[in-house]
Amino acid sequence: MPIRPIEWIPEQSGRLLPGHIRMIDQTRLPSELVYIETRSVDAVHEAIRMLRVRGAPAIGVAAAMGVLCAIHDRTFASGTELAAEVALVARYLAGTRPTAVNLFKALDRMKAAADAEQHLPPDILKESIARQAVAIFEEDRLMCRRIGEHGAALLKDGQTILTHCNAGSLATSEYGTALAPLYLAKEQGKTIRVYSDETRPLLQGSRLTAWELSRAGIEVTVICDNTAAQVMKEGKINAVLVGADRIAANGDTANKIGTYGVAVLAHAHNIPFYVLAPSSTFDMSLASGNEIPIEERSPEEVVCGFGKRTAPDGVKVYSPAFDVTPARLITAIISENGVARQDFRTSLAALL
Amino acid sequence: MPIRPIEWIPEQSGRLLPGHIRMIDQTRLPSELVYIETRSVDAVHEAIRMLRVRGAPAIGVAAAMGVLCAIHDRTFASGTELAAEVALVARYLAGTRPTAVNLFKALDRMKAAADAEQHLPPDILKESIARQAVAIFEEDRLMCRRIGEHGAALLKDGQTILTHCNAGSLATSEYGTALAPLYLAKEQGKTIRVYSDETRPLLQGSRLTAWELSRAGIEVTVICDNTAAQVMKEGKINAVLVGADRIAANGDTANKIGTYGVAVLAHAHNIPFYVLAPSSTFDMSLASGNEIPIEERSPEEVVCGFGKRTAPDGVKVYSPAFDVTPARLITAIISENGVARQDFRTSLAALL
Repeated sequence: MPIRPIEWIPEQSGRLLPGHIRMIDQTRLPSELVYIETRSVDAVHEAIRMLRVRGAPAIGVAAAMGVLCAIHDRTFASGTELAAEVALVARYLAGTRPTAVNLFKALDRMKAAADAEQHLPPDILKESIARQAVAIFEEDRLMCRRIGEHGAALLKDGQTILTHCNAGSLATSEYGTALAPLYLAKEQGKTIRVYSDETRPLLQGSRLTAWELSRAGIEVTVICDNTAAQVMKEGKINAVLVGADRIAANGDTANKIGTYGVAVLAHAHNIPFYVLAPSSTFDMSLASGNEIPIEERSPEEVVCGFGKRTAPDGVKVYSPAFDVTPARLITAIISENGVARQDFRTSLAALL
Repeated sequence: MPIRPIEWIPEQSGRLLPGHIRMIDQTRLPSELVYIETRSVDAVHEAIRMLRVRGAPAIGVAAAMGVLCAIHDRTFASGTELAAEVALVARYLAGTRPTAVNLFKALDRMKAAADAEQHLPPDILKESIARQAVAIFEEDRLMCRRIGEHGAALLKDGQTILTHCNAGSLATSEYGTALAPLYLAKEQGKTIRVYSDETRPLLQGSRLTAWELSRAGIEVTVICDNTAAQVMKEGKINAVLVGADRIAANGDTANKIGTYGVAVLAHAHNIPFYVLAPSSTFDMSLASGNEIPIEERSPEEVVCGFGKRTAPDGVKVYSPAFDVTPARLITAIISENGVARQDFRTSLAALL
């Protein structure tokens, strides 16, 4: 029922390499469903940077598969040389986006897999590295499904949730994080309705969330970001579900710009605010959200985002890609291992 | 320094009629500054409905001038017949927009002016009616200037304000309401910087507010609506200034969708939230904001606003044009007569 936004397609049966990546170009949605098929690490780099593939877990998967693109059709004199190349390409791919910890964790796993077995002949090591990338993909699918199970248990038949941006199947290997409870609730026969913030500037909420939920037969209503407060005031929202790009040890959560505002509004309207994310998103090395670096995006995305200039030439624009929601505004953080509540310093560590 | 979005241009010197309306087509901003010159009441009806002229005070002025378009080149047998025609066209123009009280008040003044002097010969009555329309325009200009003076007194040199939508000179005859303090502060030599919410779906903040402030040499930074919370959290905002479409007797304020959310955020960040509006916006016949009718706009404005479809076909959209900010979130309401603070039931009545 949910869609898979990225997959590794082996070119021979019985072996993972050589192969290529098949991924949805999410910048073309919702008008067109276009797949990018590529064997090029540069194309993967560009796709991550230009948000053709986006969402913290999917970025991790794409980066891992991007490493395979860099090595699968090349010859190496030794496993050590191959492992060195993996380290090099990992550094290259790590430069695509600064905030999502999944990117760095996936690349670290790829490097570690190569390093640990660099005594092996290069062709055997290559397959082992490829298995690591596919494992990252498969683990993500299962994790998302488990997040969905834990999250669905918090929702009652007939309820309506608000979500922001796209933490859906398009942001992961399948199911999504924030949207996974909706897919699982549907499997369980519950009807859950959704309000989706359109999520400026790139409109992931109206382009992607509305697209994937409609496609799966889940009722969704698009609102402008500035309408969330009104919808809450009208008593239409029973819970807010959002994803996360990075969660600090105290529960402070970096997610798409606008999430913090929604959290303040949910708090003011006594609506539970749930963060749903795989434990790979937890960054226990950060004591609080103050340490999470926030990427600033190009003004052009705001003032000529959709083919039409919407502000005077030369006007200043401030466009942070993320904000940090302080833990005190979060009702619970749901990962594949269960549901963490306040105090997150203890409960998040217990989930890991 | 501020711009005049609408004016009545007499065609002979010494007489107001015949004449025509000259108004900026605000749907073409910021790309092009296009003036509509028209003698047609139907064109005025269309311009109000399609938001070519917008902002509660400017709509009132446009409607009053629209009445002149309906009568200036026609022959009437008597003043009574002319007054009956004014009543008819007033009803027609009252059907353009449902929320702004200025529209109805301006049309009521036009009807009352015609009724009171229906004993006069039609040509003399026509000039008298025209003087009433021009008086509505001139009074609005002076009112806005006085709002600016009262508002500027609340701002200190070097401060930064946040505004939502466009309650600027483009929304009035000149100076604006929420933006009037910025023009007055500039006259007084103060530097006030502005963050402007782009204001989805029609982007009046990035298209109009950023345009008119830049043009006047006032520093403005455009943000997506969902970034207001982050900018407040970063400590960048000293005050929020917004306009109003209608204010109930208890201070509850209808304004552009998103205003209520900004008010909740300002409250959560201890930032003063000021509503600036002429007293013609006060509707003392309404005990509270619950009685203010809220216009719902077309889904197309949300999902094809940028010239490119941004949501899947057939998706549900909820797009109220306004929301109501409860009085408890408002620090002060500033009109041409001064500054009203809690409790507004008493202080607003005193301002009238």
